[in-house]
Amino acid sequence: MANADSFSEFLASAIDAARKAGEIIRKGFYETKQVQHKGQVDLVTETDKACEDLIFNHLKQLYPSHKFIGEETTAAGANAQLTDEPTWIVDPLDGTTNFVHGFPFVCVSIGLTIGKIPTVGVVYNPIINELFTGIRGKGAFLNGNPIKVSSQTELMSALLVTEVGTKRDKSTLDACTNRINSLLFKVRSLRMTGSCALNLCGIACGRLDVCFELGFGGPWDVAGGAVIVREAGGVIFDPSGADFDITSQRVAASNPFLKDALLDVLRQTV
Amino acid sequence: MANADSFSEFLASAIDAARKAGEIIRKGFYETKQVQHKGQVDLVTETDKACEDLIFNHLKQLYPSHKFIGEETTAAGANAQLTDEPTWIVDPLDGTTNFVHGFPFVCVSIGLTIGKIPTVGVVYNPIINELFTGIRGKGAFLNGNPIKVSSQTELMSALLVTEVGTKRDKSTLDACTNRINSLLFKVRSLRMTGSCALNLCGIACGRLDVCFELGFGGPWDVAGGAVIVREAGGVIFDPSGADFDITSQRVAASNPFLKDALLDVLRQTV
Repeated sequence: MANADSFSEFLASAIDAARKAGEIIRKGFYETKQVQHKGQVDLVTETDKACEDLIFNHLKQLYPSHKFIGEETTAAGANAQLTDEPTWIVDPLDGTTNFVHGFPFVCVSIGLTIGKIPTVGVVYNPIINELFTGIRGKGAFLNGNPIKVSSQTELMSALLVTEVGTKRDKSTLDACTNRINSLLFKVRSLRMTGSCALNLCGIACGRLDVCFELGFGGPWDVAGGAVIVREAGGVIFDPSGADFDITSQRVAASNPFLKDALLDVLRQTV
Repeated sequence: MANADSFSEFLASAIDAARKAGEIIRKGFYETKQVQHKGQVDLVTETDKACEDLIFNHLKQLYPSHKFIGEETTAAGANAQLTDEPTWIVDPLDGTTNFVHGFPFVCVSIGLTIGKIPTVGVVYNPIINELFTGIRGKGAFLNGNPIKVSSQTELMSALLVTEVGTKRDKSTLDACTNRINSLLFKVRSLRMTGSCALNLCGIACGRLDVCFELGFGGPWDVAGGAVIVREAGGVIFDPSGADFDITSQRVAASNPFLKDALLDVLRQTV
């Protein structure tokens, strides 16, 4: 049975895998990329695939009894059913559009769930060299230094982050911009980085105060960040106010003071 | 009379000033900040004022006959009339909201106009250590390496960057989100960084493909970036399609291939 010692070992293994994948990402980031389309505006790169193979091979060798869910293998048809077994949930390259364009918000995201609860998380941006880590009950860290969410209590002074997603049908886009419109009356300003995992880490380290995203790719976008947000003192929840469901492709996060104020706006629009 | 040699000297002086101001910004970025409000959602910090003093003192000592326009001194009531004289236009800390929140898109922006034409530009992000430079007719550089705009020719594959500004009245916000809605049907995705000067540099180095912003603070947001965009092969223009006016608080920029497609959408909404 997994215990606190094994959690630390799991984290060390995930950091190793993330750093190795990060080397591939860093190399590719500065080179011309050969890309293929995944949907109309989503991109997947050779780097994405190479990183997932590397991370899976690294962790499977160490933990052959664990389950694995990855963005690329799921896209290729693998079973992504989440069970109570220890399960590594991996986005080998979050922010693929940024990667293709050379915009420096890209990361490796690795989360381990046990009993479906996010327990170990690593989010690593190899371009600006930021490594976010967390273990359930043991705190959250940026490059080894403890982090915590912001102490902001007024939504009007809060920095919001969200994304416009990849769907371009009229009803999705109209709902997206209506939601943004409602929120802009209530917050200080808005950022969009193109990486769901890095947005969660932005909440965790207090750079950003409130965050939500609807319709992202899958649990791999949030599995690593969820542990890190909670261990930094933040809250993670469904944009409707319901409990966070890692498989729902919907997420919101904030410091504990701003949750209700954010939900007051979001509930009218999601 | 200013010539190519003196332009190089002006650039070197501006880089010196930007690096010194960058040290102050970097120090403040990681410290608790004492802020005061400037409008409802705009912030100004002690760092902002200290940096403008430093940059002005540095450049005035070297070029006592030149004119100076700065965000902080203008806010304090100084004359910001642009003339044909060599004029240093300075934003000591672009991205003040980011600075206050610890979001790493902050920069020093220094531009020199001669005959009202942006001639020398420096935009320096001291947090992720990126120094963008340009001299009219001499190219644009990132940390000393030549840069150029993207070669993207399809708006649907383009990464757009814009900002929501600081005004929170209903007509401004509705126009802002309607414009974003129209554009989202036409582009790959959208980013918001919170720094106008860094957005222009993102166009210049090809990380971002198209950019526009309406109602930003003043010429200090664009004076440095304008030279850098043009020298990287990009175009800078008014969002209506008119010629770029450094004093208009309106800007759009792109690689040369995407200008018309961007204007087709913007003209319906600005």
